[in-house]
Amino acid sequence: MPHVRCAEPALPGAREAAERIRRGALDPVALVEACLERIQALDGRLAAWVHVDAEGARAQARERAAEARGGRFRGSLHGVPLGVKDIFDVAGLPTAAGAAPFAHTRPAADAASVARLRGAGAVVLGKTHTTQFAYRDPAPTRNPWNEAHTPGGSSSGSAAAVAAGMVPLALGSQTVGSVLRPAAYCGVVGFKGTHGLVPADGVVPLAWSLDHVGVFTRDVADATLAIGVLAGRDLEPPEVRAPRLALAPELLAHATPEVAAHVRASADAFARAGARVEEVRLPASFAGLHAAGQAILEAEAAAYHAPAFARHAADYGPGIRTLVAAGLAAPATAYIHATRARLAFREEVMPLLLAHDALLSPSAPAPAPAGLASTGDAWHCAPWSFAGVPAISLPSGLAASGLPLAVQLVQAAGASARLLGVAAWCEGVLGPGAAPAL
Amino acid sequence: MPHVRCAEPALPGAREAAERIRRGALDPVALVEACLERIQALDGRLAAWVHVDAEGARAQARERAAEARGGRFRGSLHGVPLGVKDIFDVAGLPTAAGAAPFAHTRPAADAASVARLRGAGAVVLGKTHTTQFAYRDPAPTRNPWNEAHTPGGSSSGSAAAVAAGMVPLALGSQTVGSVLRPAAYCGVVGFKGTHGLVPADGVVPLAWSLDHVGVFTRDVADATLAIGVLAGRDLEPPEVRAPRLALAPELLAHATPEVAAHVRASADAFARAGARVEEVRLPASFAGLHAAGQAILEAEAAAYHAPAFARHAADYGPGIRTLVAAGLAAPATAYIHATRARLAFREEVMPLLLAHDALLSPSAPAPAPAGLASTGDAWHCAPWSFAGVPAISLPSGLAASGLPLAVQLVQAAGASARLLGVAAWCEGVLGPGAAPAL
Repeated sequence: MPHVRCAEPALPGAREAAERIRRGALDPVALVEACLERIQALDGRLAAWVHVDAEGARAQARERAAEARGGRFRGSLHGVPLGVKDIFDVAGLPTAAGAAPFAHTRPAADAASVARLRGAGAVVLGKTHTTQFAYRDPAPTRNPWNEAHTPGGSSSGSAAAVAAGMVPLALGSQTVGSVLRPAAYCGVVGFKGTHGLVPADGVVPLAWSLDHVGVFTRDVADATLAIGVLAGRDLEPPEVRAPRLALAPELLAHATPEVAAHVRASADAFARAGARVEEVRLPASFAGLHAAGQAILEAEAAAYHAPAFARHAADYGPGIRTLVAAGLAAPATAYIHATRARLAFREEVMPLLLAHDALLSPSAPAPAPAGLASTGDAWHCAPWSFAGVPAISLPSGLAASGLPLAVQLVQAAGASARLLGVAAWCEGVLGPGAAPAL
Repeated sequence: MPHVRCAEPALPGAREAAERIRRGALDPVALVEACLERIQALDGRLAAWVHVDAEGARAQARERAAEARGGRFRGSLHGVPLGVKDIFDVAGLPTAAGAAPFAHTRPAADAASVARLRGAGAVVLGKTHTTQFAYRDPAPTRNPWNEAHTPGGSSSGSAAAVAAGMVPLALGSQTVGSVLRPAAYCGVVGFKGTHGLVPADGVVPLAWSLDHVGVFTRDVADATLAIGVLAGRDLEPPEVRAPRLALAPELLAHATPEVAAHVRASADAFARAGARVEEVRLPASFAGLHAAGQAILEAEAAAYHAPAFARHAADYGPGIRTLVAAGLAAPATAYIHATRARLAFREEVMPLLLAHDALLSPSAPAPAPAGLASTGDAWHCAPWSFAGVPAISLPSGLAASGLPLAVQLVQAAGASARLLGVAAWCEGVLGPGAAPAL
């Protein structure tokens, strides 16, 4: 698949855009127009957007521009364009959740996370494609690095839109691997904090006890800025100098030789820059974690979907249909044992995480798979979703195929700011993420 | 049933005993002997104890005495005798959980709560009777106020032992109403804090997400002392002057006219002493709470008991057998909806609780029922166990039948110390609890 370089210049990142708007060097309306032009130029190929609210975005941008001229700024994202995964409610826009024929709503209010970003001045450009109900039945979105490959999922459109430079900031959600995996496949930063750090009100649930709100940005500083707004409190990371990193060989063993070698090479680069890298073993409870998480996912998805599924089972995609059917048949005792296994892992892994500045892991076993039928393997993201601990994926190079490679960093529950500090340090060693030739 | 006044003088409470031991005015060995004598005199009638470890208690007391003579004190409970509900592990003593024929263990280590009390100097006298597996199949224990009546359950023996003056302090557990209800029926103080305040490690579970460790004492100050040790941190209550109390008519409506009138009269007494009493309505989610809690209880009990139940179903009492059978048949989705309903009530009731110094409620719909077949109705205790918030029962008078009456005070999660402060103020108005004529 040939890569055609797009004529548009790269748009600024979230922090840079907000800073330029604040000093009068960038007009929010011009920024929105530039985003809309880039979407217009590229989205026919990439299908990142399910709904572009051009007129609404222009109206918001005009308001932000007027406020800026009056010296009034809503907050740290004043005038920054935002893409919203189409399971988050945006007032006045339909929430289709990848299942438009039978599940659309047109909410009156923003999801809590959208409201917080808008309250800080962000301009909602529109809704990005999601897999159906944020599970694994794919969205139409293509990978900006190679349109023959999946962008990953479930936050497919948000990852692709940021990677393609259509928008500097996008909202996603992760129940298993739905933020970090598409971030890794698309060569952008994907971050989700401790479970509950960002409220999930107004987001179509997949599994309440596992659902995390997350963000896609081009760099760690932009993720830090956005997540502070989303959490409603300061998450300014501490300065990091010589981080202590943990490397678990059992996580590398689940990756392709190319990815395993890449993560080891990244660890070596971090060590040369001053990090201490220590090999660790995950606690014994890791062994049953993936099965436990899947059991929780099945049962909670079934509990949410049961009424609609009873009326519309045939309209559900094969993946979510199988998931809900399994959950409807699951006994309570199995769910309880799975929850206890999940919480036991969370408790057992916390000391290991707290004893290091971050655990270093692949974000995914391999770069983005070919085709759109599968959104890839979430095995490396799943443990940290099931444990509810903060995790970030950083672009870290390119594979032989030309597709992005990534590393994942993980910290303990409650330590999102610490993780962002380590991630910024690691990003400094890795250098900035590349952009696809579009 | 005639009440025979026992010749023994009343033993000191926990705080008083510790204070007298510390200043050399009381010998821990003499105190243990006095407790053993009182048990010897009364337990043939009351059956509070399943296992009295006389020799072990004497050995502990001799050690505490020697330490005291050397000016060494383990902590704030140095030399204070303790009764332990027989679902808590005590090193070297069997844990029968009211099901001796097929479930006994002889643990090597103390439960975490027992270890904390012992670490502060408490002397374990032995194990007190529990209903089978802390559910509703009754223990043989009788109510010290009237042996023809139940002491309540499931912590039957601990409540009766403290009421009968056999021991100043006893451990209990509450999943629905198993501390506050027997405390109310027996005319002693029963307290349980926020869910998780005291670790439940080493306690036979009934339902993990609802199980609370609690204490029985003669007054609020002793409960405060014990719970601080159990929580492993200072829970010194704030001084309270004119508390703001909430009264929910729907809670009174579920009580007998005598109990409802008694709680209103108690509220009037508090108001005369300076409290502001306001009528409140519980949130709408209260309507489904009891059913939700029962569904959680069934499923979690089944998850724990499934292996033993498969081998020994016929040996389970009819109550716990029905419970486990229902839980084994429950679908995961029903459990999930019940858990969400429980957590919704918890969230919705928190502002109401935080806006007052305490919610005032009956502890039980009526005084202790006649007979031992039923341990009584936990309806008034259940909401606060299901919400995981701190609650205390205070003895508040005697019914026309001569049995104890009680009031319950409730606060928000995390506010155990605040609740204990209000309880101390209310206790000051109500006066000290009476002792049964034994």
